[in-house]
Amino acid sequence: MATLTLALDAMGGDNGPSIVIEALKKALTTHPTVHFIVVGDEAEIQSLLSSAQLSEHPRVTIAHASQTVEMTDKPGYSLRAKPDSSMRVALELVANEQAAACVSAGNTGALMTKAYFALKTLPGVLRPALMSAIPQHQGGSAFVLDLGANPVCDSDTLFQFGVMGSVAAQEVLGIAKPRVALLNIGEEDTKGNDVVKAAAALFQQSSHIHYIGFLEGDDLFAGKADVIVCDGFVGNVALKSCEGLADLLLSNIRANIEAHWLTRWFVKLFYQRLQRSWDWLKPDHYNGASLIGLRGVVIKSHGDANARAFESAIAQAIEAAQRSLPNQIKDRVEQVLLEQE
Amino acid sequence: MATLTLALDAMGGDNGPSIVIEALKKALTTHPTVHFIVVGDEAEIQSLLSSAQLSEHPRVTIAHASQTVEMTDKPGYSLRAKPDSSMRVALELVANEQAAACVSAGNTGALMTKAYFALKTLPGVLRPALMSAIPQHQGGSAFVLDLGANPVCDSDTLFQFGVMGSVAAQEVLGIAKPRVALLNIGEEDTKGNDVVKAAAALFQQSSHIHYIGFLEGDDLFAGKADVIVCDGFVGNVALKSCEGLADLLLSNIRANIEAHWLTRWFVKLFYQRLQRSWDWLKPDHYNGASLIGLRGVVIKSHGDANARAFESAIAQAIEAAQRSLPNQIKDRVEQVLLEQE
Repeated sequence: MATLTLALDAMGGDNGPSIVIEALKKALTTHPTVHFIVVGDEAEIQSLLSSAQLSEHPRVTIAHASQTVEMTDKPGYSLRAKPDSSMRVALELVANEQAAACVSAGNTGALMTKAYFALKTLPGVLRPALMSAIPQHQGGSAFVLDLGANPVCDSDTLFQFGVMGSVAAQEVLGIAKPRVALLNIGEEDTKGNDVVKAAAALFQQSSHIHYIGFLEGDDLFAGKADVIVCDGFVGNVALKSCEGLADLLLSNIRANIEAHWLTRWFVKLFYQRLQRSWDWLKPDHYNGASLIGLRGVVIKSHGDANARAFESAIAQAIEAAQRSLPNQIKDRVEQVLLEQE
Repeated sequence: MATLTLALDAMGGDNGPSIVIEALKKALTTHPTVHFIVVGDEAEIQSLLSSAQLSEHPRVTIAHASQTVEMTDKPGYSLRAKPDSSMRVALELVANEQAAACVSAGNTGALMTKAYFALKTLPGVLRPALMSAIPQHQGGSAFVLDLGANPVCDSDTLFQFGVMGSVAAQEVLGIAKPRVALLNIGEEDTKGNDVVKAAAALFQQSSHIHYIGFLEGDDLFAGKADVIVCDGFVGNVALKSCEGLADLLLSNIRANIEAHWLTRWFVKLFYQRLQRSWDWLKPDHYNGASLIGLRGVVIKSHGDANARAFESAIAQAIEAAQRSLPNQIKDRVEQVLLEQE
């Protein structure tokens, strides 16, 4: 297997570089041929690597970056004022092909702006999209995009999201013929707004997409589609609402369990079994949204990710890079554009 | 207390008129001064009333309707082809002021179309909105609108949703100064699309609205706002996605519990306590979306509502009618329009 190098933004995220180093330590074992460039404050990183006994590791190097993008920085500001941020340096490593992929837990808006600036879109790609995997009823995952890179989309952009999402579902989820759906307020042709209806027509005309029609919100997790397309406003609000509901449900269930001494005892005794449910509900292993359509692999980890979650994001980056996902996307977009001529 | 009359569409919904009659029986006791007109197939209703010992009840009358709107009927079709549907007859009773409110579990699209046609909007109201109460973290509820009546909205319409929702929150939720928020993909002024930003400006300028800014999806249930405004596309998809996630979480938790004999035993023993969580999660008592902005009270019950859920929808209709919610909304809209001149 060819040598793969990943750039890790160590300074992004709420929990600082220590969780990145902790995740790195595990990743070095899990992925024995991958090299890592840890980007950020050199002194701080060296100290953490030393504590983790990774100072002399042959597959770990440091790239110094003097600035950090704060969670409150506006994207435009960070682009102008922080050219030497760990996020930017990590992205430049991918742009210069010194790394195949980059993982950052930093400010999403800044990451999307900087990534677009540094990496540019693949030939033919109109807009990059933020894409995540969501769990499905009978197991497995589906991809949803866009989750916030583009609040307003036209029908050509939505169509391309379906094309890119399909490639990702084939390569990363291993689904031979991914079912693509458009998120809508009803299943009938007449439902929704003009952009969604026009996008549906484009999907129906394309031989490259296995389009299955409109999908309503309550079927998002139902296992009916493998790639679910929407604009960034709807996608962002919908998925964040789900996160909010999950929090509410969990705290309510916990409160009900803790309200009675006998149920509390039960929980202590069967903690592990219940933990499996909690984990699945706030699954660390789903951590990691990818910014697809760019000339390199960029994975966005949750700002408050712990080491295990960050490790999951690293695994996603490796998977996408090993499968040359950007190239695969480029080829498919080219084929689709030829078909449309 | 003045006599209030409710029209109940007995034929809408998946579970037929029997659950409506069951709900009616309880409602007659809970609300000892309210009269009910049960709308639908006279023979069938008479038979059910007889079984429920309600045939001679002084506060129950039947209004015959020869047609039923099917769940698959397109709104336009049902408007033209089914003038004698139970749904339409029930709405006409409100339009003619023979009833103060109407409750239907039928096809939402048809209900919104027929209600708009029969009842018209209040003076000054641009568009009616479908509004529901959602649970909040520390208890209590918040109203969300629009949930599907208007897939595309301009900023004036969104602003009015905030005005109407505020009135409802004051009258129905008893909140003196409801906090109004706009659903968005971020909190900063720069986030979102043009319509949302323009609506924000309108809210900021109005003395009638306690506007608290943008609210992200993951704060929908967080107790930060009392009235949450969005267009019908976003609202519908977001809330339906939450329903889908709740289903997924519950089935996953159940599966984990049932996988082990000891946890199954536990569930049997403490069924009631757990049931409280399940109930709260798929709460029947939240059943009932209202179509506000019309010249009468219209409550939409879930299509698959059971008797308890339908009873809850009846209670909502009574509450709104007793507080003359349409009149209150009319007055507030008028004040706001004066302010804007």
